[in-house]
Amino acid sequence: MPEAMSFYFDFTCPYSWIASERVLSIAGRHMRHVRWRPLPSERLCHQGAPCGVPSSRTPQIDAHIQRDLGRLLRLYDLDAVTPVPLSGGVCLAPSCGFHWIFQNQGDDAARTYAQAVFRARFREGRDVADPDVAADVACETGTDRQAFLRALSDPQWQALLGEEVGRAQRDGIFTLPFVVVDGDPFWGRDPLDMIDTWLSRGGW
Amino acid sequence: MPEAMSFYFDFTCPYSWIASERVLSIAGRHMRHVRWRPLPSERLCHQGAPCGVPSSRTPQIDAHIQRDLGRLLRLYDLDAVTPVPLSGGVCLAPSCGFHWIFQNQGDDAARTYAQAVFRARFREGRDVADPDVAADVACETGTDRQAFLRALSDPQWQALLGEEVGRAQRDGIFTLPFVVVDGDPFWGRDPLDMIDTWLSRGGW
Repeated sequence: MPEAMSFYFDFTCPYSWIASERVLSIAGRHMRHVRWRPLPSERLCHQGAPCGVPSSRTPQIDAHIQRDLGRLLRLYDLDAVTPVPLSGGVCLAPSCGFHWIFQNQGDDAARTYAQAVFRARFREGRDVADPDVAADVACETGTDRQAFLRALSDPQWQALLGEEVGRAQRDGIFTLPFVVVDGDPFWGRDPLDMIDTWLSRGGW
Repeated sequence: MPEAMSFYFDFTCPYSWIASERVLSIAGRHMRHVRWRPLPSERLCHQGAPCGVPSSRTPQIDAHIQRDLGRLLRLYDLDAVTPVPLSGGVCLAPSCGFHWIFQNQGDDAARTYAQAVFRARFREGRDVADPDVAADVACETGTDRQAFLRALSDPQWQALLGEEVGRAQRDGIFTLPFVVVDGDPFWGRDPLDMIDTWLSRGGW
């Protein structure tokens, strides 16, 4: 099997959610495995500009982004609710929990958890930054709730997340979602069509 | 004929050039006219982030952008040379000249001039920010060189360009290239495929 694709994403970013709903079928069509890598964009992007949108907004810019998002969601038949405000500052609980599940239960369980977190946030309107909610979602996807909460209180998973952010920055990942295929970088609000063409042709 | 599409671009931005080479055929297929609107991204983007790429770069980010650009240029069969550094600060001459040609010779002549400026910069490696070079390109596309240079020294065209920037900012245009179709905003490094689908379906 050829090298895995790396899919970098932020659990709080709707464009990351859209990419997460498309990446597996596109990778699968080309017999590629996908390595999921959650990152908090506030830590990754020095300029606070995830998804290539500016951090300082006007009502007009916000309206454009909402219109663009709605259009993508309709295009891919994704039902979304208005996201609730997230508790606390940077959303760390689901990313730390993801790494703990990844190391303890493996890749498939971690990916299943990540998909459930995205859907909890964007389809069900739940506050996934709250450790209790992050643990509920883990429980719903077959993970022991108490063990998950104990892991969240262990500083090693925040440290691991910090290492992931540092590694991504050193690799030049500057926005989310971001996908790396055989060393080739693909980013933007909806990078998957270009990746599909790239994999179909074997590059060009 | 339905409403024209507005194509906002920066003469110094390679992603704008790529969009400029695609926008007419896509618009033409859907019987749309395109209103070209050059803007200097330094004036438009408060955060200095045209094309959705960060203004503070690392060598890794630069490498990703070069790789992405090369890939798009090969995809669309566009030959490019390494661009020369531009003289002066913000590149105003071709944008001011564009507006003068637009008002004096009309839409087609201005568009022809814009395409020639892009090709002079990216195919021929010329310093189009230099008023003499901007005038050479105007001359090559059928405009009187001396009249063009006289127009550049008239402050009304810089004032008009300032009004264009203000109008675009009020409309929420926050990056380049940017295309507006019937009020729907499309942006990103390569927004044309989504526009093509949108126009083909009549929206969704």
